[in-house]
Amino acid sequence: MSDPADPAAAGAIRTADVIRRKRDGQELSRAEIAHLVDGYTRGQIPDYQVSAWLMAALLRGLTRAETAALTDAMLHSGQVLDLSEFPAAKVDKHSTGGVGDKTSLVLAPLVAAGGLVVPMISGRGLGHTGGTLDKLEAIPGFRVDLSIARFREVMRACGCAMIGQTAEIAPADRKLYALRDVTGTVESPFLICASIMSKKLAEGIDALVLDVKVGSGAFMKTDDDAAFLAQLMVETGRRMGKKMVALITDMSQPLGLCVGNALEVDECIGVLRGGGPADLRDLCLELAAWMFQLGGRVASVDEGRQLASQLIRSGQALDRFRQMIELQGGDAKIVDDPSRLPRAKHTLAISAPKTGCVSSIECEAVGIASVVLGAGRERKEDSVDPAVGLVLHKKVGDRVSAGQPLCTLHYNSNARAEHAKRLLEDSFRIAEQSPRAVSLVRRIISESAS
Amino acid sequence: MSDPADPAAAGAIRTADVIRRKRDGQELSRAEIAHLVDGYTRGQIPDYQVSAWLMAALLRGLTRAETAALTDAMLHSGQVLDLSEFPAAKVDKHSTGGVGDKTSLVLAPLVAAGGLVVPMISGRGLGHTGGTLDKLEAIPGFRVDLSIARFREVMRACGCAMIGQTAEIAPADRKLYALRDVTGTVESPFLICASIMSKKLAEGIDALVLDVKVGSGAFMKTDDDAAFLAQLMVETGRRMGKKMVALITDMSQPLGLCVGNALEVDECIGVLRGGGPADLRDLCLELAAWMFQLGGRVASVDEGRQLASQLIRSGQALDRFRQMIELQGGDAKIVDDPSRLPRAKHTLAISAPKTGCVSSIECEAVGIASVVLGAGRERKEDSVDPAVGLVLHKKVGDRVSAGQPLCTLHYNSNARAEHAKRLLEDSFRIAEQSPRAVSLVRRIISESAS
Repeated sequence: MSDPADPAAAGAIRTADVIRRKRDGQELSRAEIAHLVDGYTRGQIPDYQVSAWLMAALLRGLTRAETAALTDAMLHSGQVLDLSEFPAAKVDKHSTGGVGDKTSLVLAPLVAAGGLVVPMISGRGLGHTGGTLDKLEAIPGFRVDLSIARFREVMRACGCAMIGQTAEIAPADRKLYALRDVTGTVESPFLICASIMSKKLAEGIDALVLDVKVGSGAFMKTDDDAAFLAQLMVETGRRMGKKMVALITDMSQPLGLCVGNALEVDECIGVLRGGGPADLRDLCLELAAWMFQLGGRVASVDEGRQLASQLIRSGQALDRFRQMIELQGGDAKIVDDPSRLPRAKHTLAISAPKTGCVSSIECEAVGIASVVLGAGRERKEDSVDPAVGLVLHKKVGDRVSAGQPLCTLHYNSNARAEHAKRLLEDSFRIAEQSPRAVSLVRRIISESAS
Repeated sequence: MSDPADPAAAGAIRTADVIRRKRDGQELSRAEIAHLVDGYTRGQIPDYQVSAWLMAALLRGLTRAETAALTDAMLHSGQVLDLSEFPAAKVDKHSTGGVGDKTSLVLAPLVAAGGLVVPMISGRGLGHTGGTLDKLEAIPGFRVDLSIARFREVMRACGCAMIGQTAEIAPADRKLYALRDVTGTVESPFLICASIMSKKLAEGIDALVLDVKVGSGAFMKTDDDAAFLAQLMVETGRRMGKKMVALITDMSQPLGLCVGNALEVDECIGVLRGGGPADLRDLCLELAAWMFQLGGRVASVDEGRQLASQLIRSGQALDRFRQMIELQGGDAKIVDDPSRLPRAKHTLAISAPKTGCVSSIECEAVGIASVVLGAGRERKEDSVDPAVGLVLHKKVGDRVSAGQPLCTLHYNSNARAEHAKRLLEDSFRIAEQSPRAVSLVRRIISESAS
């Protein structure tokens, strides 16, 4: 009804009206979205109104303009780093999360070695997916809780730094995410996009390479869902003046061979030394190439690949990794002596029940097995064991004979190992025929495509 | 993700899962709905989870089984009256609300005079629609806040009683309605149905006649929306073992001629005396006829109409009204001397600007004008002035000459009268041709039809 004493007549935005308009599928203005985000962050709008709005936004969707406005409001709820002191381009990579997804540890030193600045603010693992901070903390002494001032100092010294989210960065996202988590409103590409992009753009970057994972071990299970989210993030970043590209990459099996924090650090050192499993190495080169290209360091992605390879071959990338570890308080000797990394007390091999070809590995189950072992967390408040995890010996397409090991558990608790073993035994499918090969990079969504 | 330490494995219902399932359009079980309603009523489930669920329910809809389960859980959140001490059938009428909708004051004594029991628990006016309790309180001394024990005593003495909702009746509805009001989740037929039916069924009735209003002065603006809600309520009541019928009736103009609490009481006395405006009288007879028929007092609705007319003609209905007023502490002399009702200090006539036929009256605007005068409330906490209101002299289809009065304002504040006058002047449309006649009862949705 119209309202003779309506405060909206005086131009004020009423929260209930904003909720109703989204509920009815109307497009909200920037001012309405800012009202909601600012009011919530300042504690002036209660949880119950925001959760109703979140559900309406999830079910009705947001337009591109609304998504950008939401991202912008969340971004400006906190500090946005000004990295203009650095003359080089500031670039980052963000992954939507997967199992054994450890490319950040390779990319930060690799791209910094190429002359760009990488201000990486990362998260922790939750559920079946791992987190960069947990992996870094497997390095004895490594500190991820640097102040913003120290973060800058590390970047000044070595071109990259890797820290966790600080209280100053996008506080709206922290508050909104906690609410989404308990109100069934996590699974919206629009809300996911705004959450990711608000945090990443707070880093003060010029360009962002997105690694959108798709498959059984990823958040997005289908190519269409992954492409939709990728497109949305590329478009949102572009509206906010950033150079963007999204690679949609396979997460139907773990990336690389290792799952577990110290094990994954070790595997990354292998890649930085010019070795490592092919899929991990290839994806790191591909992502680095795009970072170099978007950052204006090279003229083409091909050139970027060559630069990345050369920086690995020359040892410059590995040097940069040593340097960053030291600057962040960690034991840089692990790079040359990985036995200094935490190591689980026991190992246990899981053998192939028959001869054939590995036709699939249930990726989410492998992630859950690693959580069961203690490498990840079920709930935010859980702690992780840096030493435990698992190493795959066979991946999809590999031939195996009955009795040969498929993977090895690294564990500190017999009960957990028993549970993880059962999960893993059920995860490998062995068939007579080789499966159809899946390409690692399924699709590239570049700025110009949107 | 599947969860190795999942409490749901032990059979516990998790609120976030219930929200997600509704969000994804799945049908919830009775246990899931009871978990939500009981948990919320007891303060174990927070507002923010319930508001997310309400929004999901509004946008996804509820099935018939879910609507009945929700109604049942809300009904049993509080006391359900046991009126088995009364041998006669217990019947009630519920209206979805309109402007000048005052039939309850006629129906309770009329149907009680016919030998049935009418345990009427009513609400207050909000926005442009009036409320039965406000009208009753225009009768000097009339108490609507009786205890349940006193409510029974009044019914024992005169067959009917009219009170406000008590704290014991459907507390879940009170809590949910307050939340819906601020989260954009009022306008769901499923939630409206559960809210209405949970309160009405708590009266311990055997049968319920629904008066679903449609038109510019009603909550439901279209025939389809009204029919959908009517069908839903009839079906829900039927699932819960009640005899049900819904009449979809016109609210494109005010019902009767008076809008305003004391003015409407006066108009009801007119109907109980065998007079009153034709539309109000006809609707009262129609609703009473259905109440008699559903309550088993008569074999047919036709017979019910005859019985109702006869109870008015004989003065028995009016006697019953006097008796109820007295039992509830009111001044029963108003029935024979309406000048004892509160009366506004001033009156002001609004004249027709031209000669012609009243082609429409904007019903919601008339309701708002009455609120502006002080007869209703904009917000729950506002108080009402029992004396003020307006009397229509012309209704849709009536011929009028330029300068003749269209309606008269009864007011106590010049500023309010000025504002109301402007609203009312804009509400009447005068055309050369008579408008197409609209039938008062547009459709009947009976138990067997659903």
